[in-house]
Amino acid sequence: MASLVLCSVGRALRPAGRLGNACKLDLQAVPWRTRTGSTRHMSSGRVAAGTAGKRLIWATGGAAALAGAAVAGFNHLQQAEMATRTELVKDEEGNVAERCKKFMSPPITPMEVLEKRKEEISSRMEMLIMQTQAEFCRALEEVDGGKFKVDRWSRAEGGGGISCVMQDSNVFEKAGVNVSVVHGYLTEEAAKQMRSRGKVLKGKDGKLPFIAMGVSSVIHPKNPHIPTVHFNYRYFEIEEEDGSKQWWFGGGTDLTPVYIDKEDGALFHNVLREACDKHHPKYYPDFKKWCDRYFYIRHRGETRGIGGIFFDDLDSPSQEEVFKFVKSCAKTVVPCYLPIVHKHLKDSFTQEEKDWQQVRRGRYVEFNLVYDRGVKFGLATPGSRIESILMSLPLTARWEYMHEPSKGTREAEMIEVLRNPKEWI
Amino acid sequence: MASLVLCSVGRALRPAGRLGNACKLDLQAVPWRTRTGSTRHMSSGRVAAGTAGKRLIWATGGAAALAGAAVAGFNHLQQAEMATRTELVKDEEGNVAERCKKFMSPPITPMEVLEKRKEEISSRMEMLIMQTQAEFCRALEEVDGGKFKVDRWSRAEGGGGISCVMQDSNVFEKAGVNVSVVHGYLTEEAAKQMRSRGKVLKGKDGKLPFIAMGVSSVIHPKNPHIPTVHFNYRYFEIEEEDGSKQWWFGGGTDLTPVYIDKEDGALFHNVLREACDKHHPKYYPDFKKWCDRYFYIRHRGETRGIGGIFFDDLDSPSQEEVFKFVKSCAKTVVPCYLPIVHKHLKDSFTQEEKDWQQVRRGRYVEFNLVYDRGVKFGLATPGSRIESILMSLPLTARWEYMHEPSKGTREAEMIEVLRNPKEWI
Repeated sequence: MASLVLCSVGRALRPAGRLGNACKLDLQAVPWRTRTGSTRHMSSGRVAAGTAGKRLIWATGGAAALAGAAVAGFNHLQQAEMATRTELVKDEEGNVAERCKKFMSPPITPMEVLEKRKEEISSRMEMLIMQTQAEFCRALEEVDGGKFKVDRWSRAEGGGGISCVMQDSNVFEKAGVNVSVVHGYLTEEAAKQMRSRGKVLKGKDGKLPFIAMGVSSVIHPKNPHIPTVHFNYRYFEIEEEDGSKQWWFGGGTDLTPVYIDKEDGALFHNVLREACDKHHPKYYPDFKKWCDRYFYIRHRGETRGIGGIFFDDLDSPSQEEVFKFVKSCAKTVVPCYLPIVHKHLKDSFTQEEKDWQQVRRGRYVEFNLVYDRGVKFGLATPGSRIESILMSLPLTARWEYMHEPSKGTREAEMIEVLRNPKEWI
Repeated sequence: MASLVLCSVGRALRPAGRLGNACKLDLQAVPWRTRTGSTRHMSSGRVAAGTAGKRLIWATGGAAALAGAAVAGFNHLQQAEMATRTELVKDEEGNVAERCKKFMSPPITPMEVLEKRKEEISSRMEMLIMQTQAEFCRALEEVDGGKFKVDRWSRAEGGGGISCVMQDSNVFEKAGVNVSVVHGYLTEEAAKQMRSRGKVLKGKDGKLPFIAMGVSSVIHPKNPHIPTVHFNYRYFEIEEEDGSKQWWFGGGTDLTPVYIDKEDGALFHNVLREACDKHHPKYYPDFKKWCDRYFYIRHRGETRGIGGIFFDDLDSPSQEEVFKFVKSCAKTVVPCYLPIVHKHLKDSFTQEEKDWQQVRRGRYVEFNLVYDRGVKFGLATPGSRIESILMSLPLTARWEYMHEPSKGTREAEMIEVLRNPKEWI
């Protein structure tokens, strides 16, 4: 869970086999749907064809959480659609100062600046990540009974962040939800490294103003039957000499259970798929595969968890459309995870199950410290807020020499899925 | 604790500010002392001048452990000298098969090959690392009461290793002592990467036979008053087209306490200094600094522990002399650590002290996964034995958000030393 700028910057390092380009080609081949209505039509059409009856409920769950209330007298799908439509409008309406009252802390950019520039994507994204942080933190506090510690921090070179952490609480061993909004200047060389498509950016006197922001979170519960979840949604903008702007979005949400629960896996992936399908039919399948590839612990030959979605470098068809997609994704963080937390809240567990959770936590640490581009970049960057980057690490972890679950156990079942990622829907 | 080949190969990545070249210049300026006698004379001369009275005892402790017995009727220094002298001869005498009986497992290279080539440095080094493993394991078993699990493993491309692990035992939470002897072929490009001094190596049909071997160990005790220790001694050889050989040694031993105990720090560093001083007066001061620089957790601004010695790329003044130096170092692993274990064996500790140990273990994991060149190279190399590389990780570790010891506590004292490495002698 690195701060946004770090994640974005690290993209130059992504593996050669990533989906980005393939995905982009596909998107260009398919006429872009500028109205959410047509996207939803496609989605509901597929559901109406009976491909996934269960998804209706999950979609409703997700959408209901988005709008904060179910609508009586309509079926699940209709409720979901109405809720989503209402939300998309309501979310960005009203006075900035009023909306900020619900946040964990005032936004990084002064409210009057956000109010003045409320039409700009960077302002809308900052409001979105602040809102996502607040909604997720409140939902976690409600189920846990504890309170998040809120730390505001600033970055000498420009900007800052808000780190919310709940540690050794009732349900959660460590829960971190971080927002960062940083800005400053990049050298042309650094900017070139960031943009992976080889484009040379021209700055004023060789310097390019940039802004990077994002929300990221990792939640490690105590009970081994409640999975760990991670999400990160981020936005990056670089201004060239002539005033033109390079921008892109990245993000994703992924689940790391200790034991396989097919129902949990299907719920989680369905909520994400619903969010993706509203924007492009290829988003879910492509970003699901990208996620499995990204969260791969190469030296273990296994994925970190059961995936979800992951995307980076998204800059088409338009800033508005990509923002809307990221917003849809951000709106799923509560409905794709909290139902799973509630379901397993009272599950009993043995010491052996706790030990297995600890071994899996060790693998989580291995991924984050060895492979995660955001963490690697963050640790290597002078002036990074290390505590916010490393709050993704669990409170406790374990490394047993030659640990190998016995055949036929639930631990072996977990390993099997991590070695051979499956389809959950 | 990566297998040998991995550590050696990673040397091309060493920081620009390393001591290697400076040290080498010094060595060339000082006439090389081929007889251990003159080295000891220098050492005892300094001691006689009253610079470090305490060192006499430590030196004796070390040397006595080397020989396995104290000699009555002589003072500490004389005993130490006699023991060392006896040891140097005795160690390499006798039938290989007979000497192998004391090892944890038969050596990787067939005994008849080692017997036939017993004059070659590679054979002598393999016997030394096997013997070091056995001596260290036996000493740990004696103090713990438990037994090491011994795993032999082979590498498809050539060679193999012997991993000895004792986990969740009486005194040790995790103790790993690993030997590896691997060989095969390198491409000219890979060989060039390994040799940092820009020398282009010419292989037969572009391929260069290599052999790499080493012993490495990390010991994590349960009691937070007993420090963690790590050592690694390794040898690398590449054969060129014309049959000439490039070779070098590397290694070091370092201590990671959870609380500062000045007496422990002085004992540890003194034993290492004694071993170094027998070979060159600049070895200890130079390799002590190199150690502090190498085991540095940059993103935390602190060293991993209180250091010791670290060197790499050592290939002068002669193969014989460097081997003898490495042998002296390897002979210190028991006397520089076991007295400290015994001293704190019965120390009582609180839950707070255990928690602080766990936080420090987290930092140990951070160093090993983020910075250790051997681990990084090992994880990135297909066919590496991951379990042997990662057996350096503790059984348990902890990450607390914003953990900062209160002023005036023993935890704050520890942090202070890690932020400002000190002289222990």
